[in-house]
Amino acid sequence: MSRFFSNKFSTLVPYTPGEQPKDVKYIKLNTNESPYPPSKKVLEAAGGEAERLQLYSDPECTLLHTSIANLYGVDKSEVLATNGSDEILNFAFMAFSDKDNPIVFPDITYGFYPVFAEINGIPYEKIPLKEDFSIDVNDYIGINKNIVIANPNAPTGKYMELCDIEKIVKSNPNNVVIIDEAYIDFGGESAIPLTKKYDNLIVTRTFSKSYSMAGSRLGFGVANKSLIADMNTIKYSTNPYNVNRMTQGAGVGAILDNDYYMQNCKEIIKAREYTKAALEGLGFDVLDSKANFVFAKSDKIGGEALYLALKARGILVRHFTSERIKEFNRITIGTMEQMEILIREIKSILEGVK
Amino acid sequence: MSRFFSNKFSTLVPYTPGEQPKDVKYIKLNTNESPYPPSKKVLEAAGGEAERLQLYSDPECTLLHTSIANLYGVDKSEVLATNGSDEILNFAFMAFSDKDNPIVFPDITYGFYPVFAEINGIPYEKIPLKEDFSIDVNDYIGINKNIVIANPNAPTGKYMELCDIEKIVKSNPNNVVIIDEAYIDFGGESAIPLTKKYDNLIVTRTFSKSYSMAGSRLGFGVANKSLIADMNTIKYSTNPYNVNRMTQGAGVGAILDNDYYMQNCKEIIKAREYTKAALEGLGFDVLDSKANFVFAKSDKIGGEALYLALKARGILVRHFTSERIKEFNRITIGTMEQMEILIREIKSILEGVK
Repeated sequence: MSRFFSNKFSTLVPYTPGEQPKDVKYIKLNTNESPYPPSKKVLEAAGGEAERLQLYSDPECTLLHTSIANLYGVDKSEVLATNGSDEILNFAFMAFSDKDNPIVFPDITYGFYPVFAEINGIPYEKIPLKEDFSIDVNDYIGINKNIVIANPNAPTGKYMELCDIEKIVKSNPNNVVIIDEAYIDFGGESAIPLTKKYDNLIVTRTFSKSYSMAGSRLGFGVANKSLIADMNTIKYSTNPYNVNRMTQGAGVGAILDNDYYMQNCKEIIKAREYTKAALEGLGFDVLDSKANFVFAKSDKIGGEALYLALKARGILVRHFTSERIKEFNRITIGTMEQMEILIREIKSILEGVK
Repeated sequence: MSRFFSNKFSTLVPYTPGEQPKDVKYIKLNTNESPYPPSKKVLEAAGGEAERLQLYSDPECTLLHTSIANLYGVDKSEVLATNGSDEILNFAFMAFSDKDNPIVFPDITYGFYPVFAEINGIPYEKIPLKEDFSIDVNDYIGINKNIVIANPNAPTGKYMELCDIEKIVKSNPNNVVIIDEAYIDFGGESAIPLTKKYDNLIVTRTFSKSYSMAGSRLGFGVANKSLIADMNTIKYSTNPYNVNRMTQGAGVGAILDNDYYMQNCKEIIKAREYTKAALEGLGFDVLDSKANFVFAKSDKIGGEALYLALKARGILVRHFTSERIKEFNRITIGTMEQMEILIREIKSILEGVK
C-alpha cells in the first residue's frame, strides 16, 4: 500500500478471480465459461464495429438496449447494459445501499458481494444457508433490508423457485432486492417478468456464460425505469461510455442468434446431468445444480487435494478455501467430451488414493 | 429519482457527454475523435480475439501492459490499463482523495473532474485560469492538496511546459498529482519519464484520440508501482475484467502500428495550424492549442449562435454554457478537407450576420 492510499480502503480485500492461465493448455473448468464459440453474427458485428473504432460508442446503447428489451418483453427504459454484470452489481450496490442502508446476502454465494459492500462503505450481513446449502426463504421475508441473491446460487448451483423470489420481493417493499441471474439460462425461470409488478426488484444478467461472451464484458440489469434512471446517474458519473462499440455490436448479434445459444444451453444441461450422475457413481456428494457447473465433494479425497491432482493432470477446477465449502470443488460444465475426460481422470485419481 | 436512491447522491449531477447523433450524417467535430480509421493490426487483433470471446480476458492485461511499458520505457508494474481513461481517472480520485484529502483543479478544464469528486464524496476546489486561459503555475506550488491537471488542458487546448509540471509535482511531495495527457500526442511532451523520479505522480492517457480508438474504450495510467498497486486494489474490488478481450488485442495491435498513428498526429497538427490561421483571418480569437481541437470565439457572432448555425449546416462542434467560455466553441480537428468545409461554412455564416 502506498503512503497516499485513502484510509477508508486500508482493510479492503479485493475479489480474487479464478486462475486464467496463459502458458499451459488446460481443460478449463474453473471460471464457468462456455465451451462453445461465439456465433457468426457476433463475429460479423464485432468485426464491423472494429472498423469504426475511431468513433465513440453510443453512450445510450440504443440498439443493444432495444434488442435486450425485445427479447425479454420489457421497455428499453427498463434496461441498462454494463461492462460485465460486475458493473451493474456495483452500480446497484452504490445506488441503493449506503452506511444507513445495509445489504444482506447468503454466507455462501458470489464472493464479490462483500467486496462491493466494503468498497462502497456499506454494512452487510451474511445469512447462513441451510445445512443442505439451500436458501431458507423465511430468513429474507420482511426483513426491511436490501438483499442480493444469486439465483441459481454460486458456487452451489442451487436454484430457488420463482414463487419464493416473489415472496421476498413482495415482503420488503421499501428495500431493493437484487436477483443475480448470471446462470438462469441453464434451467431456471427468470424473475424479469416480476420487474413489471414490483418497483423494488433489479434482475442482473450476463452474456458471459450462456452467450459465450465472457471475453466481451457485457452484462445488464432489468428493473423499473426509475431504478434504471438512478443507476444511469451512477454510470454517467463514472464512465458514460462504459460499453465499447465492439461489445455493443456483439450483444446485438448474439440476440439475433438466440436459438444457437439456447441450443448450447441444452447441451450443457445434458452434460451437467451426465457429470452429476457419473460423480455420484464415484461416491461424490453433488448438489442439485441449475447452473453451468456442479459443486461436488468426494468421500475419498479432500477438496484441495482433488483440485491439485486435477491441475497436475491438466484440468482446472475451482476450489474455495472457506470453512463450510473447502471439501468441495466447483466444476464448470464443458462439452460432453471434456466431461468424460474429467470423469476418467477423477476415477484414476481415486484409484491412486485407495 | 426513485425513492430508493441513496441520499448521498441526491445532488449528484452526472457528466454530459458530447452529442453522438445516430440519424443524420454530420461532419462530427464535437468529441475530439480522430478522422483516421484504426490500423490493420488493430482490426486483425480485434477480429482474432472476437473468435475467442467465450473465454474471459486476461485480468492482468499482461501483453497489453508489456506493450505499453515497452513503448514508454517503464516497467509493466508501473502501468494500469482501464476501460477508457475516465476509469483510470475515477480510480485515481477514489484511491487517493477522500473527505479529508481534497482535490484541486482549474476552473476551466475537463468537466468530469468535479463529477468524480462529487460521486466519491471528495471536497474540491477550482482555481481560476489566468485571463488568457493559461494555468498559473504558482497557484499550484506547495499547496499540499491533491491536484489534477489536463495537459494540454481541455477545452482550451493550452499546454503547460514540462518544467512547470515538475515544479508542481516536486513541491507537493505528500500529495498525489494527476496529469491527464489525453491530448499529449498532438505536440506536447509527456510527463511519463517523471514517474521514475517522483512517487506522487500519476500520468493518465487514452487510446481514444491519437490512436483512433474512442470506440474501444482503452485508457491507462503510468505511475510508481505502489500507486499502481493501490489502483489495482480498486480495480479488483469493482471490475477485475475491466478491459475486454477485443480491446486488449486492439491496444497491442495499435502499438505495433505506432508509426501510422504518429503520422496521423502530424497531419492533424498541420490541419490544426491551418484552421487556427484561417479562423484568425476571419476575426476569431483562437487560443494556442497543442491538442486535436481549437477553442475559438468570433467577434461577429455569439458562441451558441455559431454552434447552432454550424449544426444547421451539418457540422457539429462543441459549445459549453459556463459563463467564462460561453462565447467560444471547441472545434475538433478532422481531415484538411473537413476543415476547409468548416472554414467555408463559417465564412458563409458570418456573411449572413453582417
